[in-house]
Parts: sequence; C-alpha cells; structure tokens
Amino acid sequence: MSESVFIDPSREAMRVTTIGLDADDTLWHNETLFRLTQERFCDLLSDKADPDVLMSRLAEVETRNLRLYGYGVKGFTLSMIETAMELTHGEAPAAVVREILAAGREMLNEPVEPLPGVETALAALSENYRLVLITKGDLLHQEQKLAASGLGDLFVAVEIVSEKEASTYARVFERHGSGPARSLMCGNSMRSDILPALEAGAWAAHVPYPMTWAHEHAEPPLGHPRFAELSTIGDLPAWVAGLG
Amino acid sequence: MSESVFIDPSREAMRVTTIGLDADDTLWHNETLFRLTQERFCDLLSDKADPDVLMSRLAEVETRNLRLYGYGVKGFTLSMIETAMELTHGEAPAAVVREILAAGREMLNEPVEPLPGVETALAALSENYRLVLITKGDLLHQEQKLAASGLGDLFVAVEIVSEKEASTYARVFERHGSGPARSLMCGNSMRSDILPALEAGAWAAHVPYPMTWAHEHAEPPLGHPRFAELSTIGDLPAWVAGLG
Repeated sequence: MSESVFIDPSREAMRVTTIGLDADDTLWHNETLFRLTQERFCDLLSDKADPDVLMSRLAEVETRNLRLYGYGVKGFTLSMIETAMELTHGEAPAAVVREILAAGREMLNEPVEPLPGVETALAALSENYRLVLITKGDLLHQEQKLAASGLGDLFVAVEIVSEKEASTYARVFERHGSGPARSLMCGNSMRSDILPALEAGAWAAHVPYPMTWAHEHAEPPLGHPRFAELSTIGDLPAWVAGLG
Repeated sequence: MSESVFIDPSREAMRVTTIGLDADDTLWHNETLFRLTQERFCDLLSDKADPDVLMSRLAEVETRNLRLYGYGVKGFTLSMIETAMELTHGEAPAAVVREILAAGREMLNEPVEPLPGVETALAALSENYRLVLITKGDLLHQEQKLAASGLGDLFVAVEIVSEKEASTYARVFERHGSGPARSLMCGNSMRSDILPALEAGAWAAHVPYPMTWAHEHAEPPLGHPRFAELSTIGDLPAWVAGLG
C-alpha cells in the first residue's frame, strides 16, 4: 500500500494488514488427490459393492472418526482400512489392506504444485500485507507441503489448527495481525474459511475449487458487507486494495 | 516472583519469565501406553516371531516412517499394520489388522491423568511465569489430552510442533516469552527437550520418566551451567526461583 501525504485517519486505522490463506485446494490441489484415492479404494472393493455404496460407507466412517483422527491423510488411511473391514464382515484380504497403506503413503509423497496464479498473487500481496497460512490437516504433512510448494518464504506465520472456528480466526488474527477487523481470510471452503472468519469480524474472500468435500459444504453469505466471491485468487490483490 | 524495592537491574533483566513444558511423560503417562500396545502387538503375532524380533522390526518400520508420518498414535497404528504385513509376507490375517486398528483407537480414547505433583507444581509456577506447552505428536490428540488433563488453563500458549530442534525453541520462546535466554524448558527427553533448548540458549530441567523411547535417548549434558537434573517436577519451582 503506497504511502500518501493525505491520509484519512479513520480509513488508515481500519485498513487490512493481515491476510489469512487456506492451503488445500486454495494454494494447491488436494481434493482431487483424495478423489483419485477414493476411486482406487472403490476398484479394490468392486466385488463387494457398487462405487456409490462404497463411497457413502467410507464417508460415514470418516465422519464418525473425525473426532478421534481429525483431518489429514493418516486418519483417512485408517478410515479406508476400517471401511474395508466393515464391507467384508471383518475379513478384508491382506492385499486390500496393503494397497490402502500404499495409497496413503503415495498421498503423503505426492509432489506439490501451486495452483495457477497463486505465486503471482501471493508475491504481490506479501509486499503490502502480512500473510498467514491457516490450515487443518496433519501437522507434519502440511509443513512438508508448504516447503515443497516453494511458497514458504511469502508467509510470516503458519498456523496448523485442529478446527477452523470463529474463535480460531479471532486468536490467529490477534496473534499475527491487528485483530480480525483488519484481517481477511481467503479460501475455498465456505464452511471452514468464510463463515467462521466473517463471524469473527474479519473480511472473507471465497475462491472456489472445482470440487468440495461434502463435509466442507455450506451456503454462501450473499450480500454480506465483508464478503466477496472471486473467480480466481488472481483477483484478490485488487479486491483487498479497495477495502477499508 | 515478589516485587522488591531493591532490584538489581542486571539480575532483573536476565530473570526467567517463561517456562516451556513437554507434555507426554512429563505431564502425563504416554510411553507406558505405547509399551502396553506393543505387548498386545507381540501377542497378536506371537506365532510369527519372538517378542524381541517383533519389537525390533516394529521399531525399524516406525523409524523409517517418521519422515512421512511424524509422531503420534495415528502413524504408530499405520506402522503396526505395515509391520504385521512384513512379518507375514504380506498376508496378515484380517483379525490382526482389526485388533491393531482397535488398539490405536483405544490409545486415542485413553483417559488422561496428570502425573503425581504436576498440578501443584504448575499451579505454583503459573503465578510467576508464563507457561507454554511444547509438544510433538498428533495435533488434535495433543489438544484433546491437554483438555482432558484439566491443566489447560494454566498455560498461556500451546505449541504442537513437528520436530523439537534448537530453532523450534528459539522461535517459540521469542513468540511467547522474552527470548531463550530468559526461558526454561522442562521435559523428560534429553534428546528433544533438553539438548536443543540448551543449544538455543535457554535453561533446561530434565525430569526423567521411568522409561524412554529409544528414539529419544541421549547422554545428559553434565556440568552444563544452565542444566539441572531434577528427580521430580515438584523440585522445579525452587530451582527456577534461584536462577538468573
């Protein structure tokens, strides 16, 4: 934000200083990888049930286990094994379990590539704002993905959290910024990135990803004064510059 | 720390303000639970190999997977399943896999009870110092254990980290304290809690737990001017009060 001799103090006091960014499906692909692994899971068990049934059983087990396992690939892998056991009356063939273990390891080893436009947008934003990565998932895996993405140096802080609630955003934007009113959250999940950030009093920009995990779905807060729907993260710098 | 009219400024400037505390096997039992689960694992596979062989194979797989899975129960569960596959030439019976999944879930559901003397020591320390929990492991599980322990309110901050290195302590003690020189780390692991904290320039108090995971073993830094070996965490308030 360029300095000016004529500063409107009321605007200056309210300008956005800090931008929170979601990671998975905002900065790089994630759901695509989960979907591909789910397809592989369905192939493995194709003689037990139709893909629809397999997917819905897996979703049930995942949801039931969220409380214990939280988000991320390790819990997903354990839930796939558990679902395979349930669908085979406790007698999943060893080959199926081995394949699931291998699929989980491959997900953890998957190369990370920033989505189109991400590097340019973040490089521009980092000149004027403090960027904070705010993400759920396995601690080590998220750190490794950030390192592999090459985007690490653009962030002043990384917050890997177990749940994204209004209180989470209030705490993170107090710690790394000037409070929620002068912060903005950008992400692909209406439920985790947008609604709780708005509830905390922050601004929020939704950048949709072509597919959303059912667990993350929610209705958009259309007409909310601090909300914007952007078609790409490349539109974020211009929107933020016009705020406050 | 009581106020005094006669303050020695050089001492005041260097006094300890912040105390980092490890969680597992410092505030509550952890290794005991892993050992019990390992015994159960050995029982499950007792027709495949002797306990010594089983334990050493499991340790190998765990170590190999640390880079991918990090620390915690979920990765441990996946490593047990993988070891069972290796020991059965890829044909682990479904019942064994089910038992391992159940063992992992039980570890995550295990009640948490502070070790003797912990509540009293932390309550006393929290009156004069900022307490920060610094721990490795699964993010969600560590948060849940802290909540279940009833000790959560005594801490000003919780840092769940993927690795405990000198740079980790430098960062955490800058963020939540007055820098490493005015901070102290207390924990049961020489390798993770003591040596890297000393390297960062902090004080360090080792409170041994009756058993140590082989991965955490290291020689004590005997004679180091900022190090103390305490027989119980109950001795920590008196040691800290005499420092700086």
